[in-house]
Amino acid sequence: MSKGISTQDTILRQALDLSSEIGLEGLTIGSLAKRVGMSKSGLYAHFDSKEELQRQVLDSAAERLTRFLVKQAFSKPRGLPRVQALFDFWLDWVDGEFSGGCPFISAAFEFDDRDGPVRENVVSHFQDVLGSIAKAARISVEEGHFRDDLDVDQFAFDFWSIQLAYHQYARLMKRDDARQRANRAFDDIIKRAQKV
Amino acid sequence: MSKGISTQDTILRQALDLSSEIGLEGLTIGSLAKRVGMSKSGLYAHFDSKEELQRQVLDSAAERLTRFLVKQAFSKPRGLPRVQALFDFWLDWVDGEFSGGCPFISAAFEFDDRDGPVRENVVSHFQDVLGSIAKAARISVEEGHFRDDLDVDQFAFDFWSIQLAYHQYARLMKRDDARQRANRAFDDIIKRAQKV
Repeated sequence: MSKGISTQDTILRQALDLSSEIGLEGLTIGSLAKRVGMSKSGLYAHFDSKEELQRQVLDSAAERLTRFLVKQAFSKPRGLPRVQALFDFWLDWVDGEFSGGCPFISAAFEFDDRDGPVRENVVSHFQDVLGSIAKAARISVEEGHFRDDLDVDQFAFDFWSIQLAYHQYARLMKRDDARQRANRAFDDIIKRAQKV
Repeated sequence: MSKGISTQDTILRQALDLSSEIGLEGLTIGSLAKRVGMSKSGLYAHFDSKEELQRQVLDSAAERLTRFLVKQAFSKPRGLPRVQALFDFWLDWVDGEFSGGCPFISAAFEFDDRDGPVRENVVSHFQDVLGSIAKAARISVEEGHFRDDLDVDQFAFDFWSIQLAYHQYARLMKRDDARQRANRAFDDIIKRAQKV
């Protein structure tokens, strides 16, 4: 049983890297079999269908994300330090966690015109992501680090927009100034959130 | 000859819609043949390969974009009015030009981990896009609408990040507040660009 789980984890990890590179739609039982050096029938023992594989890949990325996020950001003091850690976490995650960048961001633009359970899964993960940013901002208001009348959902939009642009500048365009631009944009939204 | 060009245009228009929905990698001679109701061999008369088809689709989208952009934004007075028109143009383009959103934005996240001529094509289009935003900002400085020491490349990053977040909020998440959030974020970067 434990060997089964560990094999499944190893396969999922490779599936995550592969889907971050070629997109979730390119991730098929066939393309994954090639990557991990297993037979397709061997993989079907772990995943019933392509959709089930895609769903598990997203959930597995979310688990990993939550684990790292809790470690990196939620160990910081409540309020602004945690918002800053959350922002840094996302830059690092886009940079290095998977060979092809953030699987959620790729999936966001890949599945925005498809219907079905995988899209719903992607949307639900993003509701969590944006919710966690808004919550961290709300706590910063409570702690007196941000102004009282801050629109925390607007803050989440602004925060997230920087991460998307960072992803494009760093990964597609390979621009040296990507992180500097992202940090400067973030400083600006923090200043705006603090200003009375 | 003119019939040939017009057929090619019609096919490209359908190819654009299709690729905006399923991604450029999903756009194959086979999937396009199905969409336009032609035989694969009929399509091969127009496009030598999948890569050639993808390249032409991107170039055709860029042509369309430039035509609309010139009409909508470059008819406005130099400076801030043109920057505002450029921003509104992009929101409209993401909303409605193709059935599946902006093909460049989709391609940006689809091709960021692939090498080859299609990726180079995508990068080159984005250099144009970001360059045109920075140029409009530079003109706004010259016109005295923006402050003298504005970093116009940072302005382009900030401008573009809003468009990416708008794309995700409106298209993936179908959020009602997408445009309102985008406009508010834009007002903030304009205020910052004006402030001495």
